[in-house]
Amino acid sequence: MAYVRWTRYLLPTWKEEPAEAEIPSHRLMLRAGLIRRVASGIYEFLPFGYRALRKVERIVREEMDAIGALEMKLPVLQPEELWRRTGRWEDFGPEMFKLTDRKGQGFALGPTHEEIITELAAREIRSWRDMPLTLYQIGEKYRDEIRPRFGVMRAREFLMKDAYSFHGSWDSLEETYRDMYTAYSRTFTRCGLVFVAVEAPTGVMGGDVSHEFMAVADTGEDEIALCSACGYAANRQVAHTEPPDPPPGEERPLELVATPGVRTVEELVEFLGVSPAQIVKTFLYVGRDGALAVLVRGDQELEETKLLQAAGDPTLRRVDDPGEAERISGAPFGFLGPIGLGIPVWADESVRDIPAAVVGGNREGYHYVGARAGRDFRVDRYLDIHRAREGDPCGRCGSPLRIRRGIEVGQIFQLGTKYSEALGATFLDRDGEERPIIMGCYGIGVSRILGAVIEQHHDEAGIIWPLEIAPFQVVIAVLRPDVPEQMELAERLASALDRAGLEVLLDDRDRSPGEKFHDAKLIGIPVLLVVGPRALQRGEVEAERRRDGAKASFPAAEDAVVRGVRELLRAELI
Amino acid sequence: MAYVRWTRYLLPTWKEEPAEAEIPSHRLMLRAGLIRRVASGIYEFLPFGYRALRKVERIVREEMDAIGALEMKLPVLQPEELWRRTGRWEDFGPEMFKLTDRKGQGFALGPTHEEIITELAAREIRSWRDMPLTLYQIGEKYRDEIRPRFGVMRAREFLMKDAYSFHGSWDSLEETYRDMYTAYSRTFTRCGLVFVAVEAPTGVMGGDVSHEFMAVADTGEDEIALCSACGYAANRQVAHTEPPDPPPGEERPLELVATPGVRTVEELVEFLGVSPAQIVKTFLYVGRDGALAVLVRGDQELEETKLLQAAGDPTLRRVDDPGEAERISGAPFGFLGPIGLGIPVWADESVRDIPAAVVGGNREGYHYVGARAGRDFRVDRYLDIHRAREGDPCGRCGSPLRIRRGIEVGQIFQLGTKYSEALGATFLDRDGEERPIIMGCYGIGVSRILGAVIEQHHDEAGIIWPLEIAPFQVVIAVLRPDVPEQMELAERLASALDRAGLEVLLDDRDRSPGEKFHDAKLIGIPVLLVVGPRALQRGEVEAERRRDGAKASFPAAEDAVVRGVRELLRAELI
Repeated sequence: MAYVRWTRYLLPTWKEEPAEAEIPSHRLMLRAGLIRRVASGIYEFLPFGYRALRKVERIVREEMDAIGALEMKLPVLQPEELWRRTGRWEDFGPEMFKLTDRKGQGFALGPTHEEIITELAAREIRSWRDMPLTLYQIGEKYRDEIRPRFGVMRAREFLMKDAYSFHGSWDSLEETYRDMYTAYSRTFTRCGLVFVAVEAPTGVMGGDVSHEFMAVADTGEDEIALCSACGYAANRQVAHTEPPDPPPGEERPLELVATPGVRTVEELVEFLGVSPAQIVKTFLYVGRDGALAVLVRGDQELEETKLLQAAGDPTLRRVDDPGEAERISGAPFGFLGPIGLGIPVWADESVRDIPAAVVGGNREGYHYVGARAGRDFRVDRYLDIHRAREGDPCGRCGSPLRIRRGIEVGQIFQLGTKYSEALGATFLDRDGEERPIIMGCYGIGVSRILGAVIEQHHDEAGIIWPLEIAPFQVVIAVLRPDVPEQMELAERLASALDRAGLEVLLDDRDRSPGEKFHDAKLIGIPVLLVVGPRALQRGEVEAERRRDGAKASFPAAEDAVVRGVRELLRAELI
Repeated sequence: MAYVRWTRYLLPTWKEEPAEAEIPSHRLMLRAGLIRRVASGIYEFLPFGYRALRKVERIVREEMDAIGALEMKLPVLQPEELWRRTGRWEDFGPEMFKLTDRKGQGFALGPTHEEIITELAAREIRSWRDMPLTLYQIGEKYRDEIRPRFGVMRAREFLMKDAYSFHGSWDSLEETYRDMYTAYSRTFTRCGLVFVAVEAPTGVMGGDVSHEFMAVADTGEDEIALCSACGYAANRQVAHTEPPDPPPGEERPLELVATPGVRTVEELVEFLGVSPAQIVKTFLYVGRDGALAVLVRGDQELEETKLLQAAGDPTLRRVDDPGEAERISGAPFGFLGPIGLGIPVWADESVRDIPAAVVGGNREGYHYVGARAGRDFRVDRYLDIHRAREGDPCGRCGSPLRIRRGIEVGQIFQLGTKYSEALGATFLDRDGEERPIIMGCYGIGVSRILGAVIEQHHDEAGIIWPLEIAPFQVVIAVLRPDVPEQMELAERLASALDRAGLEVLLDDRDRSPGEKFHDAKLIGIPVLLVVGPRALQRGEVEAERRRDGAKASFPAAEDAVVRGVRELLRAELI
């Protein structure tokens, strides 16, 4: 008797579209009674939503266990002192929730757990024999997002699986990284997600190699660049594309021309009659090594993530304040250019071959025309720092890239020794030499998966649960629960399905058939069985599959119904 | 191949007794690699400890599901505003962790979840038809204890199961309360605990009826009063005992006598030659209704919990500062007495029949002798507010009570309408009338259970796991893992036991047999199998049961070993 009666369950559905929700998954999670909002970015999971969440959690756990990762539990409350030792108490900034205990000690609510697990490794790992070792946990994480939105997609309290691996060699890290890549792919596939693994920026985590797993969805907050020719896939922020062809034209002598009040690319195109591709934009940055000028062609956008990634300096920031910019560069803001600037210059590759470029004159109301990189100004480093666009040539094969939107449901990182060096986590190698532990870390947004799944699996009427994470596999609508014969039949069928290992929700509410069918679609259970007068008169139970509306009817006997439902569900698995 | 190899596991054992631990369970949880300390009262669970914790969690979940409670998840971060509406933002005091988000909004880290669940009920429950409803969750709770100690026993971040029930009638509440009582008893029994359910104070939760489930242990922080004659059991703080017989003697006239510098019971006994039972101590309290004098006989202790419970005023506090006491009472501290005091007087029942009592004179250096309650001073309320002592007559049957120590592993409360009234959670009854929802709440200290179990189940050598929560059921010690024949046999047996549904830890470490036996005892796995030269030469595998040291040997064949191990484990279940 483990099936669930709706009247003894808490599954409040909404007829109205909630005003607070912008995207389908958020709307449906509210309307189908999965979640409720407690505060901005903070949700409670009602029993129906929690059932689905637990199924996702179970899949994640099984796939982690399958590759030998060991489950454990790190505390949410983490001492300030630990975060100060890696410098991330500041680096994380206001996105980290902080508090002080009654004795005045500072704590963070863990947004992630590298510090604390590295300290664990420093304590417990002595020798190369203790590795490789992979630890993981599933628990709440906390990030004080500036703009929480989209329900569980960008929440301030959310459920995450985080794993950390420890290695004596880079080869070993790469092996575990590949295992994780595979386990992640299996996890998302089992959850029913259409996803793509993309090269990713490493951000505040540090490290060199990283992949994100993106569930493809128009409502996603991330953008991904895909090459259908060679399979290259990357987060747009780090997508490598070939530099565009240089603009036509020939070299000519450098000339300083008056461009009074003309500052933007658009104004220069108008005023000088050049193409945007002939213009070079100069941005000013400051970091721990001082000022830096950054050049990008006028028809391109600077992709700051690529720049930051290449610089490897978390303090590097763009100078946007005219006063500060002039103090640092000595040149008037809006007329900044690389010629005679006296600070290091980095440029996008597309700047290299412009035959005669327009650049800022470093003098109020003046630009240079006919400027040539290498001849008129020095470029210390050429790199790919322009923003990838739809149709740009793939950096690997040259075919045109497509840009799509995605929801990041997981990310894996080869961290290397950033944390082990900062926290003194070393081991003795085979030669008895002390070396820093090599680390990887691996995250899955468990609660976010639910949102992503619904974003991909819904229609006008409601959710369409993939089988493996459906809260129930069967919903039985009893059309007249006040008619004893109908309830008895429905209960018998529910018990039989339950004994057959299926999870059943029995809709015994005092509602109209129309409302029951409507709600069954809204909550998205894979198979609906209808028990009404026809079932009793004709001895036939009607069934409908949520995904495609396929209808069937079975003799109103327990074994026939179990067989029939199994048949309908089997097609789900294909 | 789901058995676990020790060399690929993280199970660091300590030979040394940890200085930081005071009680056996804390010492053993550190030594056997279950937990590590991160900060005061904050622990990480290593894989071995987490395995046990998950088993306890599963038992709790199964027993909750079995009584129809619905699992869900409330957020840890809870808005200040909600806690202010019940007054508990202040009532909880510094024990509640508080923080401010980037926008300046205040949040508590949930020490419990009555406020938030009552708001949920206010929103989702409309009618008597929606009830009874019981919701539960298993998750981290946070309390900033003044003095965290004993490892997971009194931690600041800990795992708890909390459940809340909603009812249209008190009968319905009592039914669920009884179901919970039974489910709790089953839960603790399955965990292997020897426990007793006792009448309990309700404290900051409010409500009238409450029971605590106490695991009996000398190291427990709580005291329980037990009557073996009638089965009465209560937390000592609320244990009801019959008032003691009045002291011998006869009434005599009231007389004010000089007792210069004589203040304490001991000093009065000495100075006046009376017995402590003839003296009445007067305590001064202030609360929201003003000052209150509280009388207890000189040979008894005041049990403040009983007083607070009877007063139902969370602001009531004892005045200990002499200056403040004199300002409030007008009498000198140390000579306070009930005669002519002009404030309400409450007295323990034992004060009623003292024929000729000594009481304070309300005048520096003076006491009254020959005082008689009712004749010389008014008592507004007699009640049981003395502390129960070993041998005191049971308040129910009069037999002598025993006092024992216990660890509180669960508590259940009939909350009534305290929260629903404060937060406007009402429902429409059968007559269409709006009434406040009647509530119950029910907690289990999931992580604390682990500590309590070990406190009850250990010996000099280490932990002795009860079968149902043992992290593994079998440990196989391979004496020479470098001898291929031994490893092969051990692996074959491990696989066979795994296929038979048993969880196996294979000790393949490069350690001496002595160390392996020592660690096997320390980590407390129910059955140890030894695979060494004897197993190969004689074809016999030796086994030892942890609980009683019972030894057995089986033919070194897979089915014989599986059968033998099952046999040894079966006895565990009796």
